[in-house]
Amino acid sequence: MSVNSSGGSVLDVENVRSRVSESVISFVDDRSQLLNDVDPHLDDLHVALLDFLNEGKRLRPAFCWWGWRAAGGADEDGVIQAAASLELLQACALIHDDVMDGSDTRRNAPSIHRRMATEHANAGWRGDSDNFGVAAAILLGDICLSWTDEMYSTADLSIDILQRGRPYLDVMRTEVMAGQYLDVVAQARAEADSDLALRVATFKSAKYTIERPLQLGAAMFGGDDKLLAGLSNYGLPLGEAFQLRDDLLGVYGDPEVTGKPAGDDLREGKRTYLVTKALQLATLADAATLDTLLGDPELDTNGINQARELIADTGAGADVERLIAERTEQALESLDTVDIDPQARRVLSDLAVAATVRAG
Amino acid sequence: MSVNSSGGSVLDVENVRSRVSESVISFVDDRSQLLNDVDPHLDDLHVALLDFLNEGKRLRPAFCWWGWRAAGGADEDGVIQAAASLELLQACALIHDDVMDGSDTRRNAPSIHRRMATEHANAGWRGDSDNFGVAAAILLGDICLSWTDEMYSTADLSIDILQRGRPYLDVMRTEVMAGQYLDVVAQARAEADSDLALRVATFKSAKYTIERPLQLGAAMFGGDDKLLAGLSNYGLPLGEAFQLRDDLLGVYGDPEVTGKPAGDDLREGKRTYLVTKALQLATLADAATLDTLLGDPELDTNGINQARELIADTGAGADVERLIAERTEQALESLDTVDIDPQARRVLSDLAVAATVRAG
Repeated sequence: MSVNSSGGSVLDVENVRSRVSESVISFVDDRSQLLNDVDPHLDDLHVALLDFLNEGKRLRPAFCWWGWRAAGGADEDGVIQAAASLELLQACALIHDDVMDGSDTRRNAPSIHRRMATEHANAGWRGDSDNFGVAAAILLGDICLSWTDEMYSTADLSIDILQRGRPYLDVMRTEVMAGQYLDVVAQARAEADSDLALRVATFKSAKYTIERPLQLGAAMFGGDDKLLAGLSNYGLPLGEAFQLRDDLLGVYGDPEVTGKPAGDDLREGKRTYLVTKALQLATLADAATLDTLLGDPELDTNGINQARELIADTGAGADVERLIAERTEQALESLDTVDIDPQARRVLSDLAVAATVRAG
Repeated sequence: MSVNSSGGSVLDVENVRSRVSESVISFVDDRSQLLNDVDPHLDDLHVALLDFLNEGKRLRPAFCWWGWRAAGGADEDGVIQAAASLELLQACALIHDDVMDGSDTRRNAPSIHRRMATEHANAGWRGDSDNFGVAAAILLGDICLSWTDEMYSTADLSIDILQRGRPYLDVMRTEVMAGQYLDVVAQARAEADSDLALRVATFKSAKYTIERPLQLGAAMFGGDDKLLAGLSNYGLPLGEAFQLRDDLLGVYGDPEVTGKPAGDDLREGKRTYLVTKALQLATLADAATLDTLLGDPELDTNGINQARELIADTGAGADVERLIAERTEQALESLDTVDIDPQARRVLSDLAVAATVRAG
């Protein structure tokens, strides 16, 4: 299954990715019968979800899997299913996030609420198509969240393994929702509070994307407190670096690669670390101009370019790049000090680079 | 704990209700620390949820508890906690439902998205207060849905008991979300399709409120297929009657008692069995007028009264009352044929009347 050479970890990562994809698609397909028993109309939601799930980096399942392997766990399909359940949690988070942000695009396709609004309009149904789209997206997200738990619980693993992981699954679900709320509050308070921006990054990204999935996998195998703490020392700084990269991509990213419209974070007025740093470093006049541009739903290409230049002029972007490099380095150093399976160490080291040096 | 007289079951029902309330409030209070660790801003969501959970009929936990007792289960606090987790599922369903319907009021208080929008406005925060309220409500609903599972899984019961119940918890979560979606579709299709209206009632009410909670409780104790089928024969017709009563209250109910504005279902254009029957029975001219009034978000008191009279004139209300009586009778007859604990039988018989003869 794995190749013991420096090129091996790419194959390992790809292998896990494709097994995770297969697992989540097959779980959702199995559930189509239950939806169809309610009514054939449910097929629209089912197909929308399958299309949505066909894309995705499978990052959280990957960290969960390599947490299990790091602790010494063998290759087991049941673990793939338990790890893949995190894709359904992520689907809920993204589908609901797009509703909250009013985002039209996700993964290079219309967001779920836009897609369902179009289906409503095409069917010539009564009422407001946008409202219908939002209702459908809220419910589909709820279904994904319920299925997260169902997919995890029905994995072919001993009940002891599942019970050991459950507290980590529980805490990560609460943390991601709470982190999302804090993000919305930060946006509404609209202050140049970079501590708050980093706290949002910690909860909605660092813990949710990396630390908790790793710990979930390791705890399932029965990893001890020392291992879990070691994985946390790797996961938290890496997760922060991951989110900081996301912040840069949200402002400067290529829509073709990110799958989101250009400057989306600017239009939404997200108070990321990058943005709060720029507001702090800018001249008073520039900060005032930037503050006006942020969160303007009508922001056009000119406005986006203006905001990009204002941010770049402050040097905040370079600051963020430095921080990403620092945090990634810190993660890799921590990884060296943890006592884990050598194959897992190699993959986790490669994943650290993949998560922080990327274009989308 | 129980009194073996005809008045005993009222005490039994009240006792379970208050223990369920205590259990769910105490669970949510315990979780406040985790939310506070994320950020003190989360306290706003926490307090909003506690206020919301202070109200509620606790119907689903009651049926779950009495399903357990019917199968022969003893009085155990762990079962109260597992049953009470259904209040969190119901909180998610209601909080999200109010967002989807744009409802301002729930349980005689502002709905969660309205409450959070007001907090945003009072704080003088940036951006649209309504959007903030919707985002907060979506996330709070998601937290409730995650906690449903966490509360169920951490109940002080053997893992065997929890595992036996899990498939029923799983199916009821999917069915209620799917039923809600079907309700939204029925409203959008805006046809006089009373079969569709009854299917919506079956999934979003009859199964979700009565049949599945009963089966969950009975399955946790290890009830056999015959018992589960017998409880279904009681639960499904009763649940349908319960929803039909809700349909009447949605049109004719007293806002003081229902906790919802007068004629709310009319303004939302809900295609309930009552409404579809009225459209079928009305003269062509009356049906056309009624159809125009239904789903008009600006519908005022005059419009509501006009719609009420049009529906009453068709005799559809009397039809629905007859159907409620029939279904309740059918439920009670089925109850007589199931082999269950006599105390549970008495309570279930009383609950059948309480669920269908009520003003709110």
